[in-house]
Amino acid sequence: MTDLEAVVTALQARVQHLDDQAAIYQLIANYGPAADSGWSAMAASLWTDDGIYDAQVGAWQGREAIAGMIDGETHQSYIHAGCAHVLTMPYITVDGDTAVATCYGQLFRRDGENFRIWRVTATRWELHRTAGGWRIANRVNKLLDGDASARELLRRGLMHQGAEG
Amino acid sequence: MTDLEAVVTALQARVQHLDDQAAIYQLIANYGPAADSGWSAMAASLWTDDGIYDAQVGAWQGREAIAGMIDGETHQSYIHAGCAHVLTMPYITVDGDTAVATCYGQLFRRDGENFRIWRVTATRWELHRTAGGWRIANRVNKLLDGDASARELLRRGLMHQGAEG
Amino acid sequence: MTDLEAVVTALQARVQHLDDQAAIYQLIANYGPAADSGWSAMAASLWTDDGIYDAQVGAWQGREAIAGMIDGETHQSYIHAGCAHVLTMPYITVDGDTAVATCYGQLFRRDGENFRIWRVTATRWELHRTAGGWRIANRVNKLLDGDASARELLRRGLMHQGAEG
Repeated sequence: MTDLEAVVTALQARVQHLDDQAAIYQLIANYGPAADSGWSAMAASLWTDDGIYDAQVGAWQGREAIAGMIDGETHQSYIHAGCAHVLTMPYITVDGDTAVATCYGQLFRRDGENFRIWRVTATRWELHRTAGGWRIANRVNKLLDGDASARELLRRGLMHQGAEG
Repeated sequence: MTDLEAVVTALQARVQHLDDQAAIYQLIANYGPAADSGWSAMAASLWTDDGIYDAQVGAWQGREAIAGMIDGETHQSYIHAGCAHVLTMPYITVDGDTAVATCYGQLFRRDGENFRIWRVTATRWELHRTAGGWRIANRVNKLLDGDASARELLRRGLMHQGAEG
Repeated sequence: MTDLEAVVTALQARVQHLDDQAAIYQLIANYGPAADSGWSAMAASLWTDDGIYDAQVGAWQGREAIAGMIDGETHQSYIHAGCAHVLTMPYITVDGDTAVATCYGQLFRRDGENFRIWRVTATRWELHRTAGGWRIANRVNKLLDGDASARELLRRGLMHQGAEG
């Protein structure tokens, strides 16, 4: 291998790492608009075929079940009264073809002339690299109500890597 | 073209895509600090010369009009009482020299000892690549009050591309 | 230098810039989960050895002092009652081995069945590139209560560079 080839190979690895981080940001930034527009098939497509969404208020496995949650009475009543499912910029660790992203999920709901913060959760995204790109194998939310389980989830998301990820 | 040249050409395309996503993040992360510091010329410079900001509570075309909104009585009263215009991490689709970014806009206002969520909107950024970088040709906000127009805006932002953008 | 070498050298500079932006996102996305899980050593490790955190409600210098704030009575009472320290997507300017990131910090606290926005601050991160990656030399929060100091902080964060950072 020539020197120039070695430089290009090193660049490829750095660009792959950046591509992964950028693609996972896109995946997470897609969920809110999909959920809040009621586009159930789009929201469900973010998961693997048998992916899990364990949202504490309920748990669903597989795309059909996840789409059914979006199409269901509770979610529809929220979006027709006005709401926003906001995910914050995640901390990401990539390990080959799997990754973990950790961030906060916020549900804002219309309340009179303004809005109310219905809930704030710690949220963990266990991701798999598939032929079609990164997909969610398991997403877990824990309400930030002081229970140790939310702190545990946040802490696990930072393990195995230093600050620069 | 040698093999190495082909590898480098492919890398250039990937880096261009990453550059675009990173630059659009910067553009959107600039708006809040510009608006909340009352730096009207900076906020207006994010738009193209004849760019539009259709914020539902008002609409402005051209940099002078947008700067005038920042310098105006309503906005000034908000920033002098304490407020934050927060834009969330967007979902982005780039198509050559145009791009669309979709996210949430939140207006937090000081309220006694704490803060109130004055409004939460779905916000769409139609962007043009110019000689000076990405600029806003049209930004549209729709209040998330349950009206179908906000869901339509969110849904349009996810079209034409899969989860990885 | 051949043409191909020149192309690769230009790519390296662009990838370095992207790496810096991505690493600073990771650093900032780490703080909330570290603080809200009570992992004081992790939170403190984001600063340089003698780094400063000037949070207006208090100021601390050095990792031991910053860890002590996380382990202290006030912070512990917050996380055991339920809270989220959310940092929004920052605007970043990199200048060699130093960088400045500017964003909003939000403290959400559990309040009955829902949450309250305890405070919203403008937050400035002065960063140094170290052998171990980017670290915080100085972080300053200013409450967005209408005081001019918060507007000044936001404005300073946008100086020296145009919209594309």
